[in-house]
Amino acid sequence: MGTRKEVQDLDNISSGHRGAENSTGEIRTDPVPGEGRRRVVIENLAPMVDCGRFPIKRIVGETVTVEVDVFSDGHDEVTALLLYRKEEEYQWHKYPMRQLGNDRWQGNFTVEELGSYRYSAEGYLDHFATWKKDLEKKFRAGQDLAADLLIGIELIRETADRTGGPDALRLRKLSDTLAEAADENHALALSKNEELAELMAIHYDPDLASLFPLEPEVVVERDRALFSAWYELFPRSCCEERQTHGTFADCEKLLPEIARMGFDVIYFPPIHPIGRTRRKGKNNAVVAEEEDPGSPWAIGAEEGGHRAVHPDLGTLEDFRHFVAQVREYGMEVALDLAFQCSPDHPYVKEHPEWFRWRPDGTVQFAENPPKKYEDIVPFDFESEQWRSLWRELKEVVDFWIEQGVSIFRVDNPHTKPFAFWEYLIRKIRKEFPETIFLSEAFTRPKVMYRLSKLGFSQSYTYFSWRNTRRELEQYMRELCASPVREFFRPNFWPNTPDILSEFLQFGGQPAFIIRLILAATLSSSYGIYGPPFELCVNQALPGKEEYLDSEKYQIRCWDWNQAEHLRDFLAFLNRVRRDNPALQTTWNLQFCDSDNDNILCYLKSDLRSKNWLLIAVNLDPFNVQQGNIRVPVEQLGIPEGYPFLVDDLLSGGKNIWHAPWNPIVLDPQALPARICRLYPRLRREQNFDYFM
Amino acid sequence: MGTRKEVQDLDNISSGHRGAENSTGEIRTDPVPGEGRRRVVIENLAPMVDCGRFPIKRIVGETVTVEVDVFSDGHDEVTALLLYRKEEEYQWHKYPMRQLGNDRWQGNFTVEELGSYRYSAEGYLDHFATWKKDLEKKFRAGQDLAADLLIGIELIRETADRTGGPDALRLRKLSDTLAEAADENHALALSKNEELAELMAIHYDPDLASLFPLEPEVVVERDRALFSAWYELFPRSCCEERQTHGTFADCEKLLPEIARMGFDVIYFPPIHPIGRTRRKGKNNAVVAEEEDPGSPWAIGAEEGGHRAVHPDLGTLEDFRHFVAQVREYGMEVALDLAFQCSPDHPYVKEHPEWFRWRPDGTVQFAENPPKKYEDIVPFDFESEQWRSLWRELKEVVDFWIEQGVSIFRVDNPHTKPFAFWEYLIRKIRKEFPETIFLSEAFTRPKVMYRLSKLGFSQSYTYFSWRNTRRELEQYMRELCASPVREFFRPNFWPNTPDILSEFLQFGGQPAFIIRLILAATLSSSYGIYGPPFELCVNQALPGKEEYLDSEKYQIRCWDWNQAEHLRDFLAFLNRVRRDNPALQTTWNLQFCDSDNDNILCYLKSDLRSKNWLLIAVNLDPFNVQQGNIRVPVEQLGIPEGYPFLVDDLLSGGKNIWHAPWNPIVLDPQALPARICRLYPRLRREQNFDYFM
Repeated sequence: MGTRKEVQDLDNISSGHRGAENSTGEIRTDPVPGEGRRRVVIENLAPMVDCGRFPIKRIVGETVTVEVDVFSDGHDEVTALLLYRKEEEYQWHKYPMRQLGNDRWQGNFTVEELGSYRYSAEGYLDHFATWKKDLEKKFRAGQDLAADLLIGIELIRETADRTGGPDALRLRKLSDTLAEAADENHALALSKNEELAELMAIHYDPDLASLFPLEPEVVVERDRALFSAWYELFPRSCCEERQTHGTFADCEKLLPEIARMGFDVIYFPPIHPIGRTRRKGKNNAVVAEEEDPGSPWAIGAEEGGHRAVHPDLGTLEDFRHFVAQVREYGMEVALDLAFQCSPDHPYVKEHPEWFRWRPDGTVQFAENPPKKYEDIVPFDFESEQWRSLWRELKEVVDFWIEQGVSIFRVDNPHTKPFAFWEYLIRKIRKEFPETIFLSEAFTRPKVMYRLSKLGFSQSYTYFSWRNTRRELEQYMRELCASPVREFFRPNFWPNTPDILSEFLQFGGQPAFIIRLILAATLSSSYGIYGPPFELCVNQALPGKEEYLDSEKYQIRCWDWNQAEHLRDFLAFLNRVRRDNPALQTTWNLQFCDSDNDNILCYLKSDLRSKNWLLIAVNLDPFNVQQGNIRVPVEQLGIPEGYPFLVDDLLSGGKNIWHAPWNPIVLDPQALPARICRLYPRLRREQNFDYFM
Repeated sequence: MGTRKEVQDLDNISSGHRGAENSTGEIRTDPVPGEGRRRVVIENLAPMVDCGRFPIKRIVGETVTVEVDVFSDGHDEVTALLLYRKEEEYQWHKYPMRQLGNDRWQGNFTVEELGSYRYSAEGYLDHFATWKKDLEKKFRAGQDLAADLLIGIELIRETADRTGGPDALRLRKLSDTLAEAADENHALALSKNEELAELMAIHYDPDLASLFPLEPEVVVERDRALFSAWYELFPRSCCEERQTHGTFADCEKLLPEIARMGFDVIYFPPIHPIGRTRRKGKNNAVVAEEEDPGSPWAIGAEEGGHRAVHPDLGTLEDFRHFVAQVREYGMEVALDLAFQCSPDHPYVKEHPEWFRWRPDGTVQFAENPPKKYEDIVPFDFESEQWRSLWRELKEVVDFWIEQGVSIFRVDNPHTKPFAFWEYLIRKIRKEFPETIFLSEAFTRPKVMYRLSKLGFSQSYTYFSWRNTRRELEQYMRELCASPVREFFRPNFWPNTPDILSEFLQFGGQPAFIIRLILAATLSSSYGIYGPPFELCVNQALPGKEEYLDSEKYQIRCWDWNQAEHLRDFLAFLNRVRRDNPALQTTWNLQFCDSDNDNILCYLKSDLRSKNWLLIAVNLDPFNVQQGNIRVPVEQLGIPEGYPFLVDDLLSGGKNIWHAPWNPIVLDPQALPARICRLYPRLRREQNFDYFM
């Protein structure tokens, strides 16, 4: 909106122009009043991301609540309609909105299918409702209604004339009845006829209705875009104790255990051939030993590039078999999209135009001066041949979709142009709307938000560095209670191959459990990098948040039979997530009072399934913390002093609480958290025996 | 933005398309990347009213401060430019913006001429700056610079090739010098050459720069749109003691006194012939006596309509003479635009198509059932002939502009369509940009704000009903510290012919002084309805906020020689407003602490003229109030414990204060307020004698 708005010149405007219905995809600043009699004004529609430039996000079955200011000059009755349609539908679905006061209106609709929806608002002056209201007032004041009744009859007949068809006949009949009313009492009663009200509402004059000039988009994805548990795994390390390069076949053997843990997504770092030139050694050493496998992100070698599989992992056939096996367990494979090359990548020779070349004839490696990353060659997105580069990368994604992959974790998207991602994700999703993209951007907030606006289904977050109560509450408010929630779906990772936070390094097993519970209950999508996570591996490079002997540079054969691990707890926690709808969305979070700042307390609610979880976490991995937490009984509809059942899903303990404030003791060495299901509105006649 | 966004298809996009420069007035959702190499993103431009649908407002000489998010993928240096131009200019003026942190940039420009300006933002990757920064880092790390120097030289030569002209010669010369540098030390110094930096900045590649897709408008008005003191006067009452209908000639006799009081604008209620049918009598009586003159807002009679002058006031010639005389005194006349008719208006016969007719053949009068206003006939803006009606009303305004009027107070604009006002004001201002419109809408907030967005220069407000400290602070924050300030200019009226507030009814002369000082210092535009104001007339109809024996329905001959009046105080207060730039804008308000809630304290600042006013008002008209008020010494740059001069402009008293908190006593019977000029940053050597 807003550029070069022409002075509205009556002689230049053609009647009937409806700005927003212009099918060319272009918008006028506002409907120029080709029809100057459209008296209703529609402003300030919400939600809108950047004035409708970007879509809001939903999953199938979620609701879009739309609010908008609708008003008119004068004192006539206004009707506001919510409009929505699937992108490909031509006609709007229209539903009346309800007034919230102060000229604000609200309506909502549920998105039922994958793809895009549009929504908008329409408003008109309801002359018939105004007439009815005034008629009643005049009647009560004892005024003569003769002329007013004629006005009403005329209004109905005009509507019939405009309408045609069977409804016109019904309207004419109703107007005749009104004209033949025995007396004013009778006429007043007839004016309130429900059939008449319904017909008059359906057949308002669309030429005099105002349309909001924008049609914001809703992109609807499948539920795994919002509710997912990810397990990151280096396939080459799935070698158990053989100390050799793991294969897809080896990975298949682990599937029963990963499925038992309750994960939805198995995410593999890049599975492509790895470059040899300037290959990195163990612990990121500049020079590799002969046997070092290199970083999987240094993609491309003689054996092939982004469409090839590392020969030591198996064949493409093996990969497809693996993908199919994973589906058997109700899980999915996520692949890494790392759009960068090793110097040995076939692209470098075949498509030198996609790279930057130095005056000495060498290809430009990645650098952040004075640091050099000589094992990595970035694409030159400012290449004159950017179009063929974009197409090729899109075809890489197509290729892996053909192999059965429908989830991609995108490596460092913030180092490739934003416009490229918008192109790629839109193109892919148009054909494969079930495709999910996770943005791995750990960078400045506006960059991360821009990427999510452009279409990424989920995003990595700052969760790894939010440890205190204040930090967590503030961050969750930004994600859940600001406009950010319309487009940014967090995915919380306690660890990644790049991040072993200080909290995990120093807090021992309790720290792992604390961060796990926070991730899995604050965000409906979360992930861990395993097995190091469940084995509580916490040895870091000194002074860094990097793992010592990181799998990024070497094969690690984890002991899947080790006694001390968190697998049973993971299985239990993921089952709690599956059993409780309140944990299947991120948007239903409410923090609760706690008189100890080491105890974070929050309520997750799902009204539809009457599922309420009160969660309390000891943020201190070293000490027992006790205090009082407050249940927001008002919101839960629990009358004062009324008992309610508190069922601790983690410990299995049950309690009856009678007051909002209740004491709590959390021992990190035992169990640093409670996840309590609340049963408010207990009836007195209910049988308490079963849990006491 | 935001409708039917096409999937960006590489094959459909033509290179070089720049969304926002599309001259047809249509906007694309965002520049489709016909040029996919534009890596800079521009978001979240401010200020924008309703996504740029409406202009922001300024007066000549005011500044527009623009903020915007500008960033890119990767780590290259970004440059952000503020763009602005007069509406009719083809080329943008461009100035670099400065970084505020968190990817936010800021720039500003001053609007120097009446009319419309546009502003926007541009951003690009500054490869030359990136190269310089990296070169320096590599140099410090002792790395070999040979290849990098060649890259820089190439960059300069490419720029020269694209540029042409004398600058290309200068660039080539500079690149040659760099190529011939004696050593790396020398080359590094040459890379920092200022001429080189300047040339490279001027000649960035516009094809790779990103433009914000919208160009919001600034409507620039003359200073009286922001700084004005209005005096409302019924000309028919300018009869002194003759008890006859006053004339324009009578009004001329009052001009010296009105000018002495320091007013800028003399506002007349409608001066047209008044209808006789259903004329209202004294105190709004349904039946008028023979001698009752009727309400000036019941416009139109045999003698003429909206273009005619009431014969008892004089001729059109007399009116023009009056207008000229007013200008002699440096003042202006404001006329009332009341777009409604009496049943006797010539329009009713000549243009029956502009009115609504009842089934009994009578014209539809105004009503708000069960109330009837039978002396008033509204236009039917839903008439099929709305175009000719709009044209006619616009020509009425043209007519009065021809008579020398350039300020209009618009009566009840919220009962005529919004689109009509946008049409009227845009059309008039295109030809007569000096025209000022004051919106008299006392209605719901969103309706009032919409009217001001559409183009009204000033607006009536809720000031009349904001009496307590909390109410005033809250309301002023809404007006000054929210986005409302970009489009809504308040005009504060302590009284009007329609409003004699309870505060004035019961608070005696102190109440009048309190409300006057608040109006004249909180808002840079204010007005009074006189003489009732300065004579402190406070007799109301029982239980109402209406004047008893209101001038709306009868002639009142005020005694301009009455001893007890506020004229000298008005003259003094208006002189203070003229002498102190801090009172000439509404936007520089800052509330100060006060430990007595009956004392409202605020600072008005004008940095340019070093004009600081500390104002304290006793809001209680009945009792002496004392307390302590806090001077915000930090903002004023007054070091702790440092003395500063406090010059009370109202009492003439002077003080030296040493601390932020200072005691104050305000006696409503003496003077219920202080307006103190502050002189911060006194130098020790300054001579204190002159004020002690």
